[in-house]
Amino acid sequence: MRVIGIDPGLRNLGWGVIEAEGSRLRHIANGIIHSAGEDLSLRLVTLHTGLTEVIARYAPEAAAVEQTFVNKDAVATLKLGQARGIALLVPAQAGLAVGEYAPNAIKKAVVGVGHADKVQVQHMVRHQLPGVTFEGPDAADALAIAICHAFHMQAVRRTQGAILGRHTLEITAGQARIKRTAP
Amino acid sequence: MRVIGIDPGLRNLGWGVIEAEGSRLRHIANGIIHSAGEDLSLRLVTLHTGLTEVIARYAPEAAAVEQTFVNKDAVATLKLGQARGIALLVPAQAGLAVGEYAPNAIKKAVVGVGHADKVQVQHMVRHQLPGVTFEGPDAADALAIAICHAFHMQAVRRTQGAILGRHTLEITAGQARIKRTAP
Repeated sequence: MRVIGIDPGLRNLGWGVIEAEGSRLRHIANGIIHSAGEDLSLRLVTLHTGLTEVIARYAPEAAAVEQTFVNKDAVATLKLGQARGIALLVPAQAGLAVGEYAPNAIKKAVVGVGHADKVQVQHMVRHQLPGVTFEGPDAADALAIAICHAFHMQAVRRTQGAILGRHTLEITAGQARIKRTAP
Repeated sequence: MRVIGIDPGLRNLGWGVIEAEGSRLRHIANGIIHSAGEDLSLRLVTLHTGLTEVIARYAPEAAAVEQTFVNKDAVATLKLGQARGIALLVPAQAGLAVGEYAPNAIKKAVVGVGHADKVQVQHMVRHQLPGVTFEGPDAADALAIAICHAFHMQAVRRTQGAILGRHTLEITAGQARIKRTAP
């Protein structure tokens, strides 16, 4: 399954496409769509056109977008929200389901801990996608989002498989786990 | 000149189209595009499709969007930003220049004071557009935005006319005014 991850931003919108075959991942492409200038509406058109072209070219079957970090600066939050609107719109217009993940969930999926720094994330993205070179930090983040989504979908499939067999439901402190006991 | 005003919102996106001939205004249409459900990306597609249809149907030559009130709730600001991204994108995709006005500027243009309440604004919109009925409060706001933009463009045209003749530039407390002194 081909997955696109999108790291939304008004100035730099990062994207990364990977191929997930079982637990094996392969890098397809990554890049950054830049927008600049005074006119906000034209900048949004630039992002929309660029992302539409990327999706048409690499034909992903699933998409995921980072849940924007809501910071204390309301003006920055509003700007990011506008770019994020485009990041969510374009894959949905192409008929893709769009997953959303919090930054900590992405770090946890890729590195193993939710408070990893950028260097650790990039290191693990390189490890998962041997030979990859990043168009920039936002493209590396986008690849991490795609990896997180691929792992998440694998986990969902495994759980669905387990439910088909005989299984027990284990409930421990705060966590529910389905355990397959017979095929 | 035909003008569309847009009041962005994720649940209710208001729009209003007017015709401005010199200082005379005429109501063309107004409405609200609703979006609901769990999937944010599909809600944004609903807004995009709806607004694209409105612009194709009423063929405005200019557009204006309210500058979103940045409130203290970052999550609400982000949501509004996402809807506002669509409100700015769609007219620009149709080749229209998109004006932006702060809520106070809109009230000042329509009512005469920047701190007018919703009832006063709706009263003056009805006065400017005789016989109008509003699809809802968000549509009334959108018509106010269109009126503000029409007034603004008239003022720009008058100023440009003045600059063609002989003129003086008066600067008083905080305001610059171009005064035509000869043709």
